[in-house]
Amino acid sequence: MQITVFESTVPQFMLTLNALKNILTKAKTWGEPKKVEMETFFQMRLAPDMLPLGKQIQIACDIAKGFGNRLTPVTAPVFEDTEKTFEDYINRIQKTMNYLEGLKPENFAGYESKTIEFPWYPGKFLNGKDFVIQHAIPNFYFHVTTAYAILRTNGVELGKGDFLGNQNWKTK
Amino acid sequence: MQITVFESTVPQFMLTLNALKNILTKAKTWGEPKKVEMETFFQMRLAPDMLPLGKQIQIACDIAKGFGNRLTPVTAPVFEDTEKTFEDYINRIQKTMNYLEGLKPENFAGYESKTIEFPWYPGKFLNGKDFVIQHAIPNFYFHVTTAYAILRTNGVELGKGDFLGNQNWKTK
Repeated sequence: MQITVFESTVPQFMLTLNALKNILTKAKTWGEPKKVEMETFFQMRLAPDMLPLGKQIQIACDIAKGFGNRLTPVTAPVFEDTEKTFEDYINRIQKTMNYLEGLKPENFAGYESKTIEFPWYPGKFLNGKDFVIQHAIPNFYFHVTTAYAILRTNGVELGKGDFLGNQNWKTK
Repeated sequence: MQITVFESTVPQFMLTLNALKNILTKAKTWGEPKKVEMETFFQMRLAPDMLPLGKQIQIACDIAKGFGNRLTPVTAPVFEDTEKTFEDYINRIQKTMNYLEGLKPENFAGYESKTIEFPWYPGKFLNGKDFVIQHAIPNFYFHVTTAYAILRTNGVELGKGDFLGNQNWKTK
């Protein structure tokens, strides 16, 4: 009845980041005949005081790589947050996937005993398991869903299958 | 390094459903002095061809209880999808939480060997573990995030902390 922390996160973050790449590619294809630039989409928001698409993508990547950086000894790459073009954002997602691909189940040894702290909540921490289940996973999906919603609410033809991505369907 | 399928899902679905109750309560409180009825919010959508808030709440509940129904021998309650008022929706969420509260880790014995099928994808299935990681969890967060986004984009004062809910913070 067990799931390793690795299998509940690393391959699934990669699957969803790949779905995000496909979603952005669909937006680009949808926009081209209408002369909609991806740079326009990257600045769009669901509300004036919510973050724009570009930032949603950056944060989704940061949660996935920060997760590995906090729970394993494998140092994550630092991104400068200078993305502007479609290729820049695809490249950031791909670099995040490349980092995740380098993580191995055994890198998570002892993760339960780590204390996970955040600069915005001094004096408080989550233990490793709570960090995975209560923070990293929901936070990651929050930003990918919001990225999807920004494109979807502006007309890009997407369905939930694009968000769920390439699941491991088997044939009977 | 192990997480049981139970702890990666059941308590966390309850935590997030409780967060959803709080989000709806905040929307009600925000709307009252402005004479905004919750019934109005329940019919709002991010796009004309996306589902309204009421349906997002219903589906989030259905994913959580359907998850238990598919993977354990504990039969989930059937809901008639007749909710109209704030109290109706809060009650549906609470009934879903009550069902989840009755699930025990041992109810998931043998879940890995189950084949999970959907009427909209005949001839295909996900195995138990893939269903949990690739389908149930992301799908659940997709609908809760979309519910949050519908309220947020219409002015309700919410932050990501409302979505993440009552995490198990410890003091150093």
